[in-house]
Amino acid sequence: VKDCYEIVPVGYFRKDEKNTWIEILDEYKSGMLLMEEFSHLITLWWITGRDNKDDRSILQVNPKVLDGNQETPLSGVFVTRSPVRPNPVGLTIVKIIKIKDNRIFIDRTDAFDKTPIIDIKPYIPRSDCILNVKLPDHFKSLLEKRDE
Amino acid sequence: VKDCYEIVPVGYFRKDEKNTWIEILDEYKSGMLLMEEFSHLITLWWITGRDNKDDRSILQVNPKVLDGNQETPLSGVFVTRSPVRPNPVGLTIVKIIKIKDNRIFIDRTDAFDKTPIIDIKPYIPRSDCILNVKLPDHFKSLLEKRDE
Repeated sequence: VKDCYEIVPVGYFRKDEKNTWIEILDEYKSGMLLMEEFSHLITLWWITGRDNKDDRSILQVNPKVLDGNQETPLSGVFVTRSPVRPNPVGLTIVKIIKIKDNRIFIDRTDAFDKTPIIDIKPYIPRSDCILNVKLPDHFKSLLEKRDE
Repeated sequence: VKDCYEIVPVGYFRKDEKNTWIEILDEYKSGMLLMEEFSHLITLWWITGRDNKDDRSILQVNPKVLDGNQETPLSGVFVTRSPVRPNPVGLTIVKIIKIKDNRIFIDRTDAFDKTPIIDIKPYIPRSDCILNVKLPDHFKSLLEKRDE
């Protein structure tokens, strides 16, 4: 059993004043065939700024909740979306706005400009859209679904 | 910019005749704090059997649709859940059945027994549950949501 695996970028998130898009590297462009028939993608990206030994060794944090400054309990990183984790992989589900050549214009991402993308998958309701979810009280405001 | 990143296992999927579970490695166990308050997790895992140069260079496939043998059009891997992709990372959303020490008993996984897990995240409806999804005709049967 190998104890370490290698990941390569297949593209990058890009942002300017007007737009947010994914720029797929030329050598992976053919992996986009038929993408225009989908509305939403799951993106996996490398949290470049947290790829260091210290951040990767943190296993408990107080998670942030976007709306409000309420205190949250100390939590294992595996039940937070903290960028600090053993493998700094981010996950964002994005809506496709338009596709032009190797550019996928999207609604938003929480990743910074020039963040490396390591995988893109189609969003499939039958496996990915869970209707009956339980969350702890401090995450209650995150139970609302995305109707967009 | 680094052009390659390193990933380590934090645990493994396990299966026997009766159960399916995640076994978290001892050194990452504290990352599970408060997990019992959640119902669903997003798991990212390493598709060990497809981590070779040939499979990682395939960019187009005919995706499988579980119910039925219908033909599907050639598609870019970024719009399929094929195990063959540039970075062999699998994604499965699992339901927690019970937690015991470093074992998370779950409803199911499409990963094989002993598959390395590289990250676990909480399933958060506000970012992960998309109600209005568009899929191409050959994926129409996958539009149904998961009510479990």
